[in-house]
Amino acid sequence: MRCAYHGWKFNVDGQCVDLPTSEAETAERQKPEAAIRALKVTEYGDIIWAFLGDGEAPPLPKLEFAELPASHRFVSKKFQQCNWAQAVEGGLDTAHFSYLHAGISEGQKTSLLGRMDINEPPPIARFRWLVEDGIPKFTVLRHGSGLVLGASRQADDSQLYWRITQFMMPNHSLAPNTFPGETCQGNSWVPVDDRSCWIFCFAYQLERDLSQSERDRLAAGQGIFAEVDEDFVPLRRRENDYLLDRDMQRGSNFTGIHGISEQDAAIADSQGFIADRSRELLGQTDLGVVRFRRIMLQAAADRLAGIAPHGSNNAEAYRVRSGDAMSGCDATLPEVLEQRFGQYAGTSIE
Amino acid sequence: MRCAYHGWKFNVDGQCVDLPTSEAETAERQKPEAAIRALKVTEYGDIIWAFLGDGEAPPLPKLEFAELPASHRFVSKKFQQCNWAQAVEGGLDTAHFSYLHAGISEGQKTSLLGRMDINEPPPIARFRWLVEDGIPKFTVLRHGSGLVLGASRQADDSQLYWRITQFMMPNHSLAPNTFPGETCQGNSWVPVDDRSCWIFCFAYQLERDLSQSERDRLAAGQGIFAEVDEDFVPLRRRENDYLLDRDMQRGSNFTGIHGISEQDAAIADSQGFIADRSRELLGQTDLGVVRFRRIMLQAAADRLAGIAPHGSNNAEAYRVRSGDAMSGCDATLPEVLEQRFGQYAGTSIE
Amino acid sequence: MRCAYHGWKFNVDGQCVDLPTSEAETAERQKPEAAIRALKVTEYGDIIWAFLGDGEAPPLPKLEFAELPASHRFVSKKFQQCNWAQAVEGGLDTAHFSYLHAGISEGQKTSLLGRMDINEPPPIARFRWLVEDGIPKFTVLRHGSGLVLGASRQADDSQLYWRITQFMMPNHSLAPNTFPGETCQGNSWVPVDDRSCWIFCFAYQLERDLSQSERDRLAAGQGIFAEVDEDFVPLRRRENDYLLDRDMQRGSNFTGIHGISEQDAAIADSQGFIADRSRELLGQTDLGVVRFRRIMLQAAADRLAGIAPHGSNNAEAYRVRSGDAMSGCDATLPEVLEQRFGQYAGTSIE
Repeated sequence: MRCAYHGWKFNVDGQCVDLPTSEAETAERQKPEAAIRALKVTEYGDIIWAFLGDGEAPPLPKLEFAELPASHRFVSKKFQQCNWAQAVEGGLDTAHFSYLHAGISEGQKTSLLGRMDINEPPPIARFRWLVEDGIPKFTVLRHGSGLVLGASRQADDSQLYWRITQFMMPNHSLAPNTFPGETCQGNSWVPVDDRSCWIFCFAYQLERDLSQSERDRLAAGQGIFAEVDEDFVPLRRRENDYLLDRDMQRGSNFTGIHGISEQDAAIADSQGFIADRSRELLGQTDLGVVRFRRIMLQAAADRLAGIAPHGSNNAEAYRVRSGDAMSGCDATLPEVLEQRFGQYAGTSIE
Repeated sequence: MRCAYHGWKFNVDGQCVDLPTSEAETAERQKPEAAIRALKVTEYGDIIWAFLGDGEAPPLPKLEFAELPASHRFVSKKFQQCNWAQAVEGGLDTAHFSYLHAGISEGQKTSLLGRMDINEPPPIARFRWLVEDGIPKFTVLRHGSGLVLGASRQADDSQLYWRITQFMMPNHSLAPNTFPGETCQGNSWVPVDDRSCWIFCFAYQLERDLSQSERDRLAAGQGIFAEVDEDFVPLRRRENDYLLDRDMQRGSNFTGIHGISEQDAAIADSQGFIADRSRELLGQTDLGVVRFRRIMLQAAADRLAGIAPHGSNNAEAYRVRSGDAMSGCDATLPEVLEQRFGQYAGTSIE
Repeated sequence: MRCAYHGWKFNVDGQCVDLPTSEAETAERQKPEAAIRALKVTEYGDIIWAFLGDGEAPPLPKLEFAELPASHRFVSKKFQQCNWAQAVEGGLDTAHFSYLHAGISEGQKTSLLGRMDINEPPPIARFRWLVEDGIPKFTVLRHGSGLVLGASRQADDSQLYWRITQFMMPNHSLAPNTFPGETCQGNSWVPVDDRSCWIFCFAYQLERDLSQSERDRLAAGQGIFAEVDEDFVPLRRRENDYLLDRDMQRGSNFTGIHGISEQDAAIADSQGFIADRSRELLGQTDLGVVRFRRIMLQAAADRLAGIAPHGSNNAEAYRVRSGDAMSGCDATLPEVLEQRFGQYAGTSIE
């Protein structure tokens, strides 16, 4: 790589290998001083990964979307103007589906799919259950790469409807809302600075290719994907008040904002660029948020103490899955995880 | 009112009345902690008023435009990017009419209405008097809600032409330029932060409805009203240099800026977001500005000392009028006020 | 000049000569207090010059472009968003022509004019020499108004090709790239604040008028001139990433940016608004930059010590020329300067 100004050339290790504005002897003497910091990067899962620490990079986390054939996945990103951790917390909170992403019909809260029968299969009925039961019961377990969060709601016939989210240290998550066969979705939340972040978004099928029309819908802003411009900046964002539409707010949803991702962004942004957490009131459904903060604070303390943060030496423990499940009324999260995900629930649950 | 995120519901007193993400017992325990600050608001004069202080809100000031039937008034607002007090001071300074709002014709200062005869009636002739006498004599009197400012200029036949402005604590004013029967105008100057403010603008007829064409002209930016966009931001503003036109400046007015309101805004803004008052030179016609600063500083001192600021307990004292008057050459302001406004001059002048 | 607000009038010395809002006696007393700072300005070379110091303005520097008939010159300006000295340093660095302003053809560095024969005359061949010899030998001499910088490169037949730049204290420079008869170019670099500057650009012919088509090309952004909008802000600038085009970068030049001036701006800006010079590695070809910093630091020290900075009392010493020259292989800069510029090399070389 050459500098466009004077043509100094650097190799991939950061060593200066050509210093063409100096004579040979001078150049040789200056090259070691001219060396620049090189970051080892790897392409993996259609994303370029860099290790910013000192020393040898640890192995890349074995994220399933990246391990699958490229034809099974779709990867994009979106820019968000708030602290990255604030954005993550929205991703770990499944309780807000009962309001933020609910619909409104004739003045009443209704499922995202509108009015529905009660004999719909679970992939449809869940949108009704999300609205009918606004008090999901959270269980959070720690595993080899982070946390698995299970939130159960009352379904029909005394069954429980579970939404299971994965959080992998320090900044990855897998979204719920997937019954077997449905397309999985997840995020890597990457700070740009304390007040903005890149949110990498990935969607993937475990057993088959994504079709072109599926890719097109994701690219257009489906699910956790935002509708973005050519610089990956969301079209509906902080500066333009998310194109909030008061008519939509009256008749269609609580925010008047189009798009699941954009609704989430509006909530995260509206807390300020960096929310003051000393003034908040945590509720029963904030267990995931609490556990996320604890594990991150512990990791920061570990890092300072020279201890490898949780997950960083355990690449295999990132091969986990998230999604939805049905169970009987007294099933526990470990039982549900075992039945639904088996070895992909989260190795060595602690 | 429900939060769009998790559906927590608050009543108009700020009490949390529904906390649907928690079970009943937990919710009841958390509701008192979840209470938010509620501001008592009132619709009055087509404006929503809020009391931001602690305790019981004092009675609303009895501003005449708000006491009249709604059909008599037109209310709007405009955004300004400077400290609110800096904007007020322009509103209390009638001296600048002799230059800022004067016209230019063939290189000479001329009335806003162009060249005119000397036998025009006062509502027309005043524009000539404004230009002919650039040294208005100020008298400022304190009354129950604030200050009344009288500025007299030489008119024809040894008469005096008076322009009378009202300032009502802490942030209201009534503009001059109204002979009996003409449409009155006034402002409430509301800080957004230290560097910007909302200026609410109201126009009203004492005895009759405003016609649609009168409303249309006010909405388009007549008098103290600015030409604004759908967010009430003036079309001619700081960022676009008020669309200053050098040709207009050569042949039409001193600023090259279209609109009385926009000319005033340019002057207020050009002092900076917050002007450094320690470096200014006050002149003979700045008496209104001086008295405004004194009464505001006193009010701030009173507030700190636990004393109710001037006007705050005297809602009736806000029922005052401003406007123009003619008098003999040796009339005093109290005489002119009594003759022109009677009980509306300002109760209990001190 | 009258203030548009209250009509206070000031003469060219800053004295207040009319204070029309006060009566005669008061006005006379206030006028001395109302005086404002007046800067003596002079039109010279189609530029307005002001002396911002105290006391008598020193004589204007005798810059040749300004001494010539107006028909011989073209003058414009461009806005740049970085510290002015950072921009100057790019102007004093002729080494970067071998990369920054070189072309790319079929993956190889090539002259700005593309592939060429080896028998082209020097005004054409120099673009090949610039690319073939990336290690210009710098000689910097101090003269009565600043520095003359000579950079020699290997040409054909053991000849040297010299590029000679002038720097005149504290913020003027003359560009190389002119053989006799060609149009000369230079800049005055004027700080707006620590993070932005106006770069005045001038082009001139010594012996003849500039044609209209020459003026049109300069106005459109030739050489050191940028393509600017009506406010003299470059169309390709920091905010829009200089409209960098990756295809152009692959096939045409190193930056993918159109325009010599815009390429220079991108390099200066990309160092940050104010570069941290404590972290840089200076090379063999940075001699001009080093000498510029030294002479400026000395001038600042002199100014603090009450000594007139170098050049400030020597207007005649600014009548210097820059340009290109050919010489034998062992010619020194003083010999080349004498032969190419005679008395215009820089009077009283120290």
